[in-house]
Amino acid sequence: MKFVRFTINNQLLQGIIENGEIKEISGDIFNKWEETGTYYDQSDVKLVSPIVPTQIIGIGANFVSDKQELPEELPAVPVFFFKPVSSVIGPNEEIIIPKGIDQVKFESELAVVIGKETKDVAEEDVFDHIFGYTIGNDVTAPQFFHQDGHWTVGKAFDTFTPLGPVIETELKLEETRIRANLNGQLKQDSPPELMIISIQKMIAFLSKVMTLRAGDVILTGSPVGAELIGEGDIIECEIESIGQLTNTVVRSKAEVKS
Amino acid sequence: MKFVRFTINNQLLQGIIENGEIKEISGDIFNKWEETGTYYDQSDVKLVSPIVPTQIIGIGANFVSDKQELPEELPAVPVFFFKPVSSVIGPNEEIIIPKGIDQVKFESELAVVIGKETKDVAEEDVFDHIFGYTIGNDVTAPQFFHQDGHWTVGKAFDTFTPLGPVIETELKLEETRIRANLNGQLKQDSPPELMIISIQKMIAFLSKVMTLRAGDVILTGSPVGAELIGEGDIIECEIESIGQLTNTVVRSKAEVKS
Repeated sequence: MKFVRFTINNQLLQGIIENGEIKEISGDIFNKWEETGTYYDQSDVKLVSPIVPTQIIGIGANFVSDKQELPEELPAVPVFFFKPVSSVIGPNEEIIIPKGIDQVKFESELAVVIGKETKDVAEEDVFDHIFGYTIGNDVTAPQFFHQDGHWTVGKAFDTFTPLGPVIETELKLEETRIRANLNGQLKQDSPPELMIISIQKMIAFLSKVMTLRAGDVILTGSPVGAELIGEGDIIECEIESIGQLTNTVVRSKAEVKS
Repeated sequence: MKFVRFTINNQLLQGIIENGEIKEISGDIFNKWEETGTYYDQSDVKLVSPIVPTQIIGIGANFVSDKQELPEELPAVPVFFFKPVSSVIGPNEEIIIPKGIDQVKFESELAVVIGKETKDVAEEDVFDHIFGYTIGNDVTAPQFFHQDGHWTVGKAFDTFTPLGPVIETELKLEETRIRANLNGQLKQDSPPELMIISIQKMIAFLSKVMTLRAGDVILTGSPVGAELIGEGDIIECEIESIGQLTNTVVRSKAEVKS
């Protein structure tokens, strides 16, 4: 099932997409929801981020380019980071880079949406706690990384986390490829099996540390091939059964000094 | 004014404290609230965290021990980090360290509660955006810091962010001292003027990066003197006009491996 949020006539609504048609729903997608009986043509609405995450957690440097490069031993402490919820935008919204930032990096990622309280979960039970999947673009300004390795500021700017277009609840991971097209050119194209720390392992690990909750979004890492981009570039992150998440980079007049 | 949240008879309520008495209130403390007319004796209720933060942002290594040590030049990119909201506990709740963690560090901090949308705010306007102040204990497991400098996991464990006991809206910063008593012994005791990056500067900087919102909590750094503690230790963080935030360290049976 494909869950969306959308606007039409200045109203923010939620729905499910079936055959290019949107069935409006009401309620809490993680809990109890129902169809309202109202239908919309997909071409009449504007899709927005399919979720307002409660928190966004990312994992760093999680892909190899080839299965043979997968390390035999996993890192003792994976690199996790948080992104602020204020950084979220939806499909076709603009990624705004402030004055003072030369370029940003795109990072197309498979984004996991947690569906229920998740604490001390074993690897084999992780999928029971996942509501669905969307696409995330973990936009990053490396020049705002701290010299001692802290990434927070460089990943925290408003508009730096495009999400969408839908939350797909029935994704087949084994058929999934995480792609990015920069101005129409394929730059990233990898399956989840090239993740160093698998989705099961990363969520099981996180759940030993903290209680994840419905609405938490986990960005599972970006395939090899991310590049720096700037004003005017169009970045399309794509996962076939979820869709395309397309955003254009623009420049803001507001300045931020590093 | 001192805002609290508290439980009595299995109900979670909010109120304001005046002269040891709690006046129950209803509504949104950041927006519109009113007294319900019900009063409680403070000794009859259990105070919980005075806020469920929308996000928690901390700043690293932000104190010197003496004014003469304040650097002439501020760091270009301050070290900010996020803590998950699931790490929050209230006064007199237990800090639980999982098996696999030997000791944790306490860090008594002045916690700023943002009161309204805060974006691109000038230093001189920062105080208009602060709703009030509480005490935070930024509990940390350094052994879960990543070797490349990422702190996220080491600060993310459930129960690692005690907050409370009240949100004080009229704190006089110039009369404030941030203290910590470990098992009754004074370990930290510094005024905000020993911060390397002042509250105005840190919130103005953050607001250039991201949109802060009502309910965001900013931990403004911990005075010199934090120590490692373990099972059975009692840590009391104190700021005179806010009160004491006391928590005991216990050990969990759940294991986490680094």
